[in-house]
Amino acid sequence: MDDQDLAGEAPDERTADLGFARVDIDRARRTGDPEVVFGQGKTAEQVVEILTTLHDRHPERAVLATRLSAEARSLVAERLPHATIDEVARAATLGPLPTARGTVAVIAAGTSDAPVAAEAALAVRVHGADARRIDDVGVAGLHRLLEARDRFADADCLIVVAGMEGALPSVVGGLSGVPLVAVPTSVGYGASFGGLAALLAMLNSCAPGVVVVNIDNGYGAGVFAARVARNAGPHR
Amino acid sequence: MDDQDLAGEAPDERTADLGFARVDIDRARRTGDPEVVFGQGKTAEQVVEILTTLHDRHPERAVLATRLSAEARSLVAERLPHATIDEVARAATLGPLPTARGTVAVIAAGTSDAPVAAEAALAVRVHGADARRIDDVGVAGLHRLLEARDRFADADCLIVVAGMEGALPSVVGGLSGVPLVAVPTSVGYGASFGGLAALLAMLNSCAPGVVVVNIDNGYGAGVFAARVARNAGPHR
Amino acid sequence: MDDQDLAGEAPDERTADLGFARVDIDRARRTGDPEVVFGQGKTAEQVVEILTTLHDRHPERAVLATRLSAEARSLVAERLPHATIDEVARAATLGPLPTARGTVAVIAAGTSDAPVAAEAALAVRVHGADARRIDDVGVAGLHRLLEARDRFADADCLIVVAGMEGALPSVVGGLSGVPLVAVPTSVGYGASFGGLAALLAMLNSCAPGVVVVNIDNGYGAGVFAARVARNAGPHR
Amino acid sequence: MDDQDLAGEAPDERTADLGFARVDIDRARRTGDPEVVFGQGKTAEQVVEILTTLHDRHPERAVLATRLSAEARSLVAERLPHATIDEVARAATLGPLPTARGTVAVIAAGTSDAPVAAEAALAVRVHGADARRIDDVGVAGLHRLLEARDRFADADCLIVVAGMEGALPSVVGGLSGVPLVAVPTSVGYGASFGGLAALLAMLNSCAPGVVVVNIDNGYGAGVFAARVARNAGPHR
Amino acid sequence: MDDQDLAGEAPDERTADLGFARVDIDRARRTGDPEVVFGQGKTAEQVVEILTTLHDRHPERAVLATRLSAEARSLVAERLPHATIDEVARAATLGPLPTARGTVAVIAAGTSDAPVAAEAALAVRVHGADARRIDDVGVAGLHRLLEARDRFADADCLIVVAGMEGALPSVVGGLSGVPLVAVPTSVGYGASFGGLAALLAMLNSCAPGVVVVNIDNGYGAGVFAARVARNAGPHR
Amino acid sequence: MDDQDLAGEAPDERTADLGFARVDIDRARRTGDPEVVFGQGKTAEQVVEILTTLHDRHPERAVLATRLSAEARSLVAERLPHATIDEVARAATLGPLPTARGTVAVIAAGTSDAPVAAEAALAVRVHGADARRIDDVGVAGLHRLLEARDRFADADCLIVVAGMEGALPSVVGGLSGVPLVAVPTSVGYGASFGGLAALLAMLNSCAPGVVVVNIDNGYGAGVFAARVARNAGPHR
Amino acid sequence: MDDQDLAGEAPDERTADLGFARVDIDRARRTGDPEVVFGQGKTAEQVVEILTTLHDRHPERAVLATRLSAEARSLVAERLPHATIDEVARAATLGPLPTARGTVAVIAAGTSDAPVAAEAALAVRVHGADARRIDDVGVAGLHRLLEARDRFADADCLIVVAGMEGALPSVVGGLSGVPLVAVPTSVGYGASFGGLAALLAMLNSCAPGVVVVNIDNGYGAGVFAARVARNAGPHR
Amino acid sequence: MDDQDLAGEAPDERTADLGFARVDIDRARRTGDPEVVFGQGKTAEQVVEILTTLHDRHPERAVLATRLSAEARSLVAERLPHATIDEVARAATLGPLPTARGTVAVIAAGTSDAPVAAEAALAVRVHGADARRIDDVGVAGLHRLLEARDRFADADCLIVVAGMEGALPSVVGGLSGVPLVAVPTSVGYGASFGGLAALLAMLNSCAPGVVVVNIDNGYGAGVFAARVARNAGPHR
Repeated sequence: MDDQDLAGEAPDERTADLGFARVDIDRARRTGDPEVVFGQGKTAEQVVEILTTLHDRHPERAVLATRLSAEARSLVAERLPHATIDEVARAATLGPLPTARGTVAVIAAGTSDAPVAAEAALAVRVHGADARRIDDVGVAGLHRLLEARDRFADADCLIVVAGMEGALPSVVGGLSGVPLVAVPTSVGYGASFGGLAALLAMLNSCAPGVVVVNIDNGYGAGVFAARVARNAGPHR
Repeated sequence: MDDQDLAGEAPDERTADLGFARVDIDRARRTGDPEVVFGQGKTAEQVVEILTTLHDRHPERAVLATRLSAEARSLVAERLPHATIDEVARAATLGPLPTARGTVAVIAAGTSDAPVAAEAALAVRVHGADARRIDDVGVAGLHRLLEARDRFADADCLIVVAGMEGALPSVVGGLSGVPLVAVPTSVGYGASFGGLAALLAMLNSCAPGVVVVNIDNGYGAGVFAARVARNAGPHR
Repeated sequence: MDDQDLAGEAPDERTADLGFARVDIDRARRTGDPEVVFGQGKTAEQVVEILTTLHDRHPERAVLATRLSAEARSLVAERLPHATIDEVARAATLGPLPTARGTVAVIAAGTSDAPVAAEAALAVRVHGADARRIDDVGVAGLHRLLEARDRFADADCLIVVAGMEGALPSVVGGLSGVPLVAVPTSVGYGASFGGLAALLAMLNSCAPGVVVVNIDNGYGAGVFAARVARNAGPHR
Repeated sequence: MDDQDLAGEAPDERTADLGFARVDIDRARRTGDPEVVFGQGKTAEQVVEILTTLHDRHPERAVLATRLSAEARSLVAERLPHATIDEVARAATLGPLPTARGTVAVIAAGTSDAPVAAEAALAVRVHGADARRIDDVGVAGLHRLLEARDRFADADCLIVVAGMEGALPSVVGGLSGVPLVAVPTSVGYGASFGGLAALLAMLNSCAPGVVVVNIDNGYGAGVFAARVARNAGPHR
Repeated sequence: MDDQDLAGEAPDERTADLGFARVDIDRARRTGDPEVVFGQGKTAEQVVEILTTLHDRHPERAVLATRLSAEARSLVAERLPHATIDEVARAATLGPLPTARGTVAVIAAGTSDAPVAAEAALAVRVHGADARRIDDVGVAGLHRLLEARDRFADADCLIVVAGMEGALPSVVGGLSGVPLVAVPTSVGYGASFGGLAALLAMLNSCAPGVVVVNIDNGYGAGVFAARVARNAGPHR
Repeated sequence: MDDQDLAGEAPDERTADLGFARVDIDRARRTGDPEVVFGQGKTAEQVVEILTTLHDRHPERAVLATRLSAEARSLVAERLPHATIDEVARAATLGPLPTARGTVAVIAAGTSDAPVAAEAALAVRVHGADARRIDDVGVAGLHRLLEARDRFADADCLIVVAGMEGALPSVVGGLSGVPLVAVPTSVGYGASFGGLAALLAMLNSCAPGVVVVNIDNGYGAGVFAARVARNAGPHR
Repeated sequence: MDDQDLAGEAPDERTADLGFARVDIDRARRTGDPEVVFGQGKTAEQVVEILTTLHDRHPERAVLATRLSAEARSLVAERLPHATIDEVARAATLGPLPTARGTVAVIAAGTSDAPVAAEAALAVRVHGADARRIDDVGVAGLHRLLEARDRFADADCLIVVAGMEGALPSVVGGLSGVPLVAVPTSVGYGASFGGLAALLAMLNSCAPGVVVVNIDNGYGAGVFAARVARNAGPHR
Repeated sequence: MDDQDLAGEAPDERTADLGFARVDIDRARRTGDPEVVFGQGKTAEQVVEILTTLHDRHPERAVLATRLSAEARSLVAERLPHATIDEVARAATLGPLPTARGTVAVIAAGTSDAPVAAEAALAVRVHGADARRIDDVGVAGLHRLLEARDRFADADCLIVVAGMEGALPSVVGGLSGVPLVAVPTSVGYGASFGGLAALLAMLNSCAPGVVVVNIDNGYGAGVFAARVARNAGPHR
């Protein structure tokens, strides 16, 4: 890619103008990742329209829509019968998922963290890696986490999702040398300050090599982890 | 105790005026706790003078001085040869320690947490309970914590000291139903914000029944835990 | 308890999978505490289902459900006629309460703090100690607090609930040497920042030996205080 | 006062230019208050020079200099032998104090709050009212505060100084209807965040009619309280 | 007042128990102030009941109810036809207002600050002083403030209400030596952080002798200012 | 400028590598602004070396060095005798100042704001506009500000510098429609939180069209204001 | 303008009293800017009434109303058929727009920033300059920004609107020396803290000469930029 | 690894007790990573002693010591002549570096970010991957970043280091799909709040798949990136 590439093409080939939004339809070529619709703040009609546009341009690969309201999920189901709705992740996909290379283990502390973990797992899958879910292994019930070790020890990347005190990444990070992405969630109340407590805890993890994404950003963790897993070689 | 008791005595029997400070010499009678000197912000001379005054009034029980500068510890050692200096805890005691009733386990995550853990253990001892130290059992090295379980499972109260992400109380709290006091420390940098990250984590612990004290407040945790341990009955 | 114990059992004996949640039905054995349902964020149907599951496994002891919406409380009353609803605490219990050992005094500053105080008292009771309520003794009306001293002086543990400036624990802590758990509430406005002001005040209490839980966490204070009270020996 | 008054005079009559600072020498006429030098960030030489200039213009009334370093206090003592140095308040006055009208009681929680309380009392005195000091009456030792009630019940204004949890103004405010100015101090550590905890507590006081100044701002509280006391009529 | 007074009376003479709240009916005797109902978080029925109870005990003086919802104001109007409703202040009074002694000027920066200013003025009036309103004199339109100077120069106390950048108290404080209480409001958006910007500005006012209350706390400012004004002697 | 321009030149013509820093010597061509050395965190030797390098490449125009320690200022004076040192601004220039187009008025609230105001004025001058200083016109002494109006009414851009409550930009912004850049300073203590109070106040200014730079960033304000003034046409 | 001008006129000529608000109808004469209605917190009826009043006094120039609810926009459209509604900007104008002098480029990072960008552009236009919109040029798609350079390189002032990480002003500021006003938006979630992340980023921009307004304050940026553009001379 | 492995070994084989610290000498076996000494807060003597101990146990692989004071670096150089000192990274290594697998590009925004970038690069190298440095490519000088694209496009993982507004990761993340770890630094002043501004910006990056570590945590980023690079397969 050179500057010519950056600036010289006609804009119409890289974006689609829907009136209310200009959609980037060139992302896969630049970064290897599929198109994604961030549904928060968009109407159900807008979500359907963007999904349709992106799918029409690239029917051969999946488009992902996240943070969909119940209303948007209903309308997608009604208008786009080929779409797949993930009610827990509050997300939808349209088009065939790519062949998976590599595996990401998505480990979640509690039941309330499930929507973020599900969004992460779906993003991993849409971005080309396999996702393996390990749920309800909070640090206050250590036996369940220890029992699950075999299920994440051989993964290519870990995503660890936790709210409240956000301790799980430190414990998992001490048990394994697999690259670990921590996702703080807004689960909690009072001095959790909307997930700030978990975020700060994860940034200060005593386990070396823990990296962190924004609060509730399962999608971002999934994108990153899929990139790592896709590139991973045969096992060490 | 009635109002007469609260307000009717002559002040001179309950306080000593040193010019630069009015010292409460009546605390043991009101709360059952010994006198304590908070050394931070006091000169070495002032520390020695207050220690001397309190010891003179109650030579039969220990006085504790915390947060002593190196200079204050030196001067106490020189002027009060009967005092015991704890260099790690940056503290000194003068007078005989009380007979211990009950046991408090003081569990610390890392080497850097040692001064706070030592202050807590000393405070426990001065306030009439036994203290048992368990060090370097951070959550990123779970095996050491699990090996140490027998050493805290039968205590009457736990003090758990940790900086950085402050995850240790949640893990310990999941392993045991013994009352647990968490002490966040200012160990860390950047987004630890002087111990705020650990404090918030501990307040949001997913393990039920974790209580918290101020950042670096080993003394306060020790006072509380000793009260619990002293009152504990024969074992369950 | 050894590692075998932590990791070797079959999972089905320790958890129940309800589809939307995996429920820990083994907590009492590990920590001596009963099962609890945190109702916030759960539907009324889910609350009823979890309560039913937990009660079926352990019909001989109480299950507690907290932070129930009005709708959830209604449905519990309708479907589980043997349940007891505490409207002020926004909570429900199902199954016989344990025999109480020891006493916890629950002291609340103002009328608006009543829900948190009621949750704390109920948690104390469910976790096996007696709870004694002392209400409306805010520090701006000192006479009422002083009159109530006899009602908390002989308790085994104190829970002190206050919002706004959170001063009550310091005043109570100066009057008594009983172990004291402070609960900040979100009562207030403006610079109370959702209970932050009270939380910080309590963490900085000048009365030694005050410990603190999360904002509005009556439940956590109750669990902790009951553990202390249950273990307390005959009176000093 | 009209606009002519605001804008029409020649500037030289109202200010003195010292090169490094333009000094307002007209404040007393506008507000009834004396001139004051805020010493923080100024060299010892500058403090002496400003004090001298202000005193020369108005030798008939006191000038106050606050927040003086030890070096500045030494130089003032050496160069201005008629100045009075208050070592605790870290302040100096030059020129005769005004006749006092009305009384302000300055109530301080702990020994460490003494510098702020002393600054407040001196400011009261320089601004024309009497100051009565009541020290070491923290809320954890309620009997001393209750004993002192007679000494503040008949004052025209109260200044209440406290660090840490900042509870004292609420307790005093509940005992008395005298106008009360609360001064948070930076005394504390950890989650006191340099006095923020005390500041927030005082702003959220449950005692009605408590007003607050900046952290450690004894001077501002003194100015305000003196204005109230000077204006107060014969007793109610 | 002595300890006997604090603790010796039978509680029923000083409080009324309404089931959902214990009401202090003794405040006037202790502090000289009337009873007040803080309506936020109370149902319309509860407000009416407390107002009725307090008025029955002391029909000779006004009771004030603040922070009333539209529904509560309607019900008060319907059930208590003798009550006076202040729609802007969202408040009601019942019973004759006291004779006013002294004058408080209530100065507000913008139209949106009117509810807080109205609450302050009403509180002043109920607590026994006269209130004079000066509105819409924000610092960006200096001429209006300068024109209004005569209307506040001779007051006994000032209340200055402002949101956004909270600059008005500094400007007014530079024009006058009358005791000045600043009230930050939550008027603003974005980096006003719910009134925090105005609060911090007022605490850091460069005009000496400015004191501050909580965000939107018109009531507290009114109580304080009325106390100052009631005590003020004939004019200087 | 096209992409060729962005990416195609040989790097050596646009930067100079000093070993410890790669210096941008091409900025003037890209943005019309001179080179600048940010001295904070650099040794005196490094400052001298960078100044020398930049001056050698462009001897025909001034280089500016800001935030110089006393040591760095001394060394610059010694080694670069043609440099001009501004002791108040803690800055130095080397090379001829450009011809000034347009005028910027730099208005400062207090004496302690002088270093930031001086840095701003110097930056204005180096970036090609005239700077006119107006000092000590804080809002608590409104008459001085009103007297100075004529000195800023006809400027092309205003820079308003204030610490503490940061009110001055709002007042100036209400008096004039000239574009106004507000600079909060870290002057203050306690709840000023290092200039945060002034920053928030300025961001919330009720005067429309006030823009803000970082705390103490006189340099940035100067660059911006000079750009505005240089472009301004003959007067309106 | 002198003091006479500030204070001497009869108030009725400069303000209109609508009962619920006193409206400034003199602003254009003082600052050269048109009247503006800030619609947030006002009822639809109030918006219509103020617009009508301002338009009646100055039918020859446009009045702007911002932050209008959908209901207010409907009522304005119905009652004031000559008004122009901008649905994206949530704003309305009434009366002829002024002749434009100079050009402001309004550059926005993402689709969600459109309402703030539209408000800014409209404010520019109403305040007398031309506005040119450049949308969807976020920093993660650099080619679109580079392609758009020609469209902002010759503007007289830039407004750069971005939420999330707020990086766009730094990148644009590095490409151009045109005066640049950055507008952080509240677009984002989690650790964006309502726009705080973008605000802080913009205040710390490494591109010199970036100035910032409050979060979502498109209006303020527009006022400022229009003032700069109106005054700009023929091109450099 | 099973529970036996976690808990059953004799402790002496896995840790070394130095008196002042218990050193983990078993980390490589558990996680594949080398031993590391965090030098902050340790004396020069302690650093030398720990380095020696760790090296003696595992002479066949490198030990890393970070955050060394100048004094510690001197003592290490003197006592351990085989150690390699990195003065910019403030770090030292002892023992042979491992064979590198995979490549990490370390991209830094400004000269002041060099120490953190150097620490990251050294950590990468010690943990078994190659590190390629790309310096001084801040977003305000886009051409240098664009020129450097070829040097990071084929890396296996990116580390992007930036202070101030922390915009660089978003721009790099938009140019490349390589996994990207962002490191905020404390470079900045005022509203950078010690690196908080950069941290928040990076957490809110609009480029998908950006992960973040603690402020100034070059070491943690290096550990993580090396793990990713070591596992990466032959190129895609």
